[in-house]
Amino acid sequence: MAPTNERQMNDTSSKASESPAEPKGKRPPVLVDGVTLNGPTLDIREAESFLREAMPIVMEEAVWKATDVKEKVCEWRSPEQLKDLLDLELREGGEAHPQILQRCRDAIRYSVKTGHPLFFNQLYAGMDPYSLVGRFITEAINPSLYTYEVAPVFLLTEEAVLKKMIEIIGWQDGGDGIFSPGMETTQTDIFLSFFIILFSFIFIFFFIIFFIFFFILHLLHHLLTVIERLSLCSAGGSVSNMYAVNVARYHHCPDVKVLGLSALPRLVMFTSQECHYSVSKAAAFLGIGTNNVYVIPSDKRGKMIPAEFEKQVQRAKDEGALPFMVNATAGTTVLGAFDPLEEIADICERHNLWMHVDACWGGGALMSKKHRYLLQGIHRANSVAWNPHKMLMAGLQCCAFMVRDKTNLLQRCHSAQASYLFQQDKFYDVSYDTGDKSIQCSRKPDAFKFWLMWKAIGTKGLEERVDRALAMARYLAEEIKKRDGFRLVMEPEYTNVCFWYIPPSLRDTADGPEFWRKVHAVAPVVKERMMKEGSMMVGYQPHGDKANFFRQIIISPQVSREDMDFLLDQIHSLGMDL
Amino acid sequence: MAPTNERQMNDTSSKASESPAEPKGKRPPVLVDGVTLNGPTLDIREAESFLREAMPIVMEEAVWKATDVKEKVCEWRSPEQLKDLLDLELREGGEAHPQILQRCRDAIRYSVKTGHPLFFNQLYAGMDPYSLVGRFITEAINPSLYTYEVAPVFLLTEEAVLKKMIEIIGWQDGGDGIFSPGMETTQTDIFLSFFIILFSFIFIFFFIIFFIFFFILHLLHHLLTVIERLSLCSAGGSVSNMYAVNVARYHHCPDVKVLGLSALPRLVMFTSQECHYSVSKAAAFLGIGTNNVYVIPSDKRGKMIPAEFEKQVQRAKDEGALPFMVNATAGTTVLGAFDPLEEIADICERHNLWMHVDACWGGGALMSKKHRYLLQGIHRANSVAWNPHKMLMAGLQCCAFMVRDKTNLLQRCHSAQASYLFQQDKFYDVSYDTGDKSIQCSRKPDAFKFWLMWKAIGTKGLEERVDRALAMARYLAEEIKKRDGFRLVMEPEYTNVCFWYIPPSLRDTADGPEFWRKVHAVAPVVKERMMKEGSMMVGYQPHGDKANFFRQIIISPQVSREDMDFLLDQIHSLGMDL
Repeated sequence: MAPTNERQMNDTSSKASESPAEPKGKRPPVLVDGVTLNGPTLDIREAESFLREAMPIVMEEAVWKATDVKEKVCEWRSPEQLKDLLDLELREGGEAHPQILQRCRDAIRYSVKTGHPLFFNQLYAGMDPYSLVGRFITEAINPSLYTYEVAPVFLLTEEAVLKKMIEIIGWQDGGDGIFSPGMETTQTDIFLSFFIILFSFIFIFFFIIFFIFFFILHLLHHLLTVIERLSLCSAGGSVSNMYAVNVARYHHCPDVKVLGLSALPRLVMFTSQECHYSVSKAAAFLGIGTNNVYVIPSDKRGKMIPAEFEKQVQRAKDEGALPFMVNATAGTTVLGAFDPLEEIADICERHNLWMHVDACWGGGALMSKKHRYLLQGIHRANSVAWNPHKMLMAGLQCCAFMVRDKTNLLQRCHSAQASYLFQQDKFYDVSYDTGDKSIQCSRKPDAFKFWLMWKAIGTKGLEERVDRALAMARYLAEEIKKRDGFRLVMEPEYTNVCFWYIPPSLRDTADGPEFWRKVHAVAPVVKERMMKEGSMMVGYQPHGDKANFFRQIIISPQVSREDMDFLLDQIHSLGMDL
Repeated sequence: MAPTNERQMNDTSSKASESPAEPKGKRPPVLVDGVTLNGPTLDIREAESFLREAMPIVMEEAVWKATDVKEKVCEWRSPEQLKDLLDLELREGGEAHPQILQRCRDAIRYSVKTGHPLFFNQLYAGMDPYSLVGRFITEAINPSLYTYEVAPVFLLTEEAVLKKMIEIIGWQDGGDGIFSPGMETTQTDIFLSFFIILFSFIFIFFFIIFFIFFFILHLLHHLLTVIERLSLCSAGGSVSNMYAVNVARYHHCPDVKVLGLSALPRLVMFTSQECHYSVSKAAAFLGIGTNNVYVIPSDKRGKMIPAEFEKQVQRAKDEGALPFMVNATAGTTVLGAFDPLEEIADICERHNLWMHVDACWGGGALMSKKHRYLLQGIHRANSVAWNPHKMLMAGLQCCAFMVRDKTNLLQRCHSAQASYLFQQDKFYDVSYDTGDKSIQCSRKPDAFKFWLMWKAIGTKGLEERVDRALAMARYLAEEIKKRDGFRLVMEPEYTNVCFWYIPPSLRDTADGPEFWRKVHAVAPVVKERMMKEGSMMVGYQPHGDKANFFRQIIISPQVSREDMDFLLDQIHSLGMDL
């Protein structure tokens, strides 16, 4: 790239200028409002020296050490300790580089290393070097994804990625889509549990009264059940799913955009109980109301029961409401369950409902010839949400929302009013102007990192990762069945492996309320010890009427069979005295 | 950090294990579903070698060259050319490192350098090294901001930043807030204009018929007026403003969350014509309907007229609707106008309306003792949206939404149903559990980079930057007044400097429709030439009945007075033949 900027090149532009500009190099200092305006104030050499010192720290501490299996996953500190350690206060004066570099080291040190091979806590994990470089590039370039003018490369790579994802979904006539700021699946309960457990222990220690202990356990069970229901929200509580609701209702009642819901009949949407709260959140935000989310029972595996779905549709119709969409889930948060998409699609066709598939987590299986049967029927959906930052390791956030529609529905639904005029414009290819498809006016270039990674490892490489993660889950499930004191909650269908650990003291107790009450208390203690040791992180939660169980999630190709063995060894070693 | 992970440390855990595990190091390969599971498959050395080769490219090309005033701002290619150059297709097989490194170089080369000192195109610009390092750290750590357990450092830094911002707003009793995925201000019209202008020129060239030329100019004017109105959407079309609408209506009608809008009276909200379309977008998405956004006329400076606001409130009441909120703007996109907040607050108090201030762009002035008078009265707002990624250069995205409320309104409004149970929990400090305050289930740690930058340069450093940017805008305005052929649209109040360039051929033409039609065509041509040369980027747009004018935005401390002179020289040199 040859320097063509004339500003510092003695000086074609000032020749052309008619202004009474002084000759360059002799300009007197200009003072406005007490500020000297000559020359930049940000010393680029100082910036450079800071970056040259900081980058080795970032690479060494936040990339290499953070993904090294021999290092800790986390360095636990309580909020109070950490506040002291970090010195959070923002003051009038700045700090010198050595201090800021130390702050960088501290921030990294006390952060949870989500790229560590033994981080199994969420529905994302691992570190992909290509995606990471893609993210460094977009952070340095700092683009806003709106017009081709400002983000040409990032708009085109987004288009290429969406096109390929739509092809993989199986919409043979194509479709449309957008990357939206997404959601991540988390568990609200664990931190809460810490405090409860801690509190419980203080009680036990001081009073040694078992009555109080059981009272607190009861309270804990009650609270965790509530919070478990809340945590389900994360299965689909994403902006993508909100898009789905908005597009679906606009498809049914285009007037809603202008007149609002108060002028329309009561709209009703459907979802299974496994992701009830996710969709509730969208319904509240979009003005539909949580009461108008009709909840469909799931079977024991966590899959929506189609006959129950049809019953709920009939109920809404009988009430005189307008049923307009269903949210089917492909890969639930806790159990990794896949709703039966073909049967749901049949019902949607019979009742003219918008079929949205939340494949944020389960979409990864589409990359695998062996496992894509799990999403059989997804090509019949009207819209799909799929987050490559989960199973495909594209890095947070990377959330695609796609519609099968080819009539520019996204644009019509989200644009600011005058979109019909765009259609009259024959000179301009509006497909590059994705801004008006979005509810934001612009977005981060979340597709680029995924594009770069895909280029580097190919479709084949993505498929191998998915196949390997599912094989690893299968291995872990078999190991659990072999070992004393471990019990599978159910056979895994995806890479969520759910299991209980039963300490030796409970192994002779008969199944019953008493047994499960005690088992319920095991996982939080094991988790607390695990985090304080920093050895690994794995999630747990209660579910429905089931006592707390561990949920192991497998994603990253850095994870080996030895890690699975270690996981089970470690849980036993941390919990054998309970 | 001493290695404490036992997985590779011969081996306390397997002693404790009761599993029939083989001794470490001698484990036979395990094959499941045709996949070998021993050892990680991601070769960490290969990843390391890629990162070691890629990072110098990122730093050299995307950081140093991209911010060097002697380099180009952009390297323009048409979409078709760029598609060829980038080879976007995603294939079955992956590519070798040298190819991927070349893709990184290409992606950077053809991207617009938004950190370049001569990038004046949007409401963000510049490169801050501390923020950049903060972003590299969070990309490497890849955290999801939800529970203290998973993101301790990032939750605490968010809390610290929000606390300080709330203090600066002037809410003496504190408040609450959240960083949301934000929006960026852009201009839809420019790329469109390219094509229209290009097309116009082809017509002129081939037909040399003035009738057609004027017909197209008329069409262009018509289209640009439409798109100008669309582009205003970006002034506040943010997720933060959606939060404001949702919180405000929940505050007025808590039933909305459960029952939805169809059970409520018609809700009406208000905004000035300067940001009509921003709020329209939120109203459509949240089910309120764009017709229920009542538009308040602005004065010539772009400020909301308080008396007109009160008239509209009365109109809504007379119609039997329920007025519930106003969106006041502090720093409009095009003119940089500030609505009169004190007078708006008086009216809100009289009519019990929620007062939201969209200070996404203008909030930066709060950092300056000299200029914060522009937002006089902001402490009386119920909620404020303020994006530090704009004037304060925190890097995209960094969008704070804050409420004065202290009754946990954010949580109550956005949580998934059972939030009242949280209140009964005395053991757990729910203030760390920000997840349920958000409409997403989790978020990127957008506050951390801002926190690190603030630590490094201090409140004083931020203030100096703002003061300098405003002084620079003042300097530019004075230069424009001095130069022949330049005409200010109005005196700048903030750092938006709006002006026309009049080429010599038009300087003797009298003001009138003919004159303005010709002036209208100047900016798009100058912009096209500027981009093809890659010398700088500055936005333009028509506004109301005003013909296309340039809008110069000043933010970065890397910008000097010499750049201002260059800007004017360059515009003259590019447009003098028109």
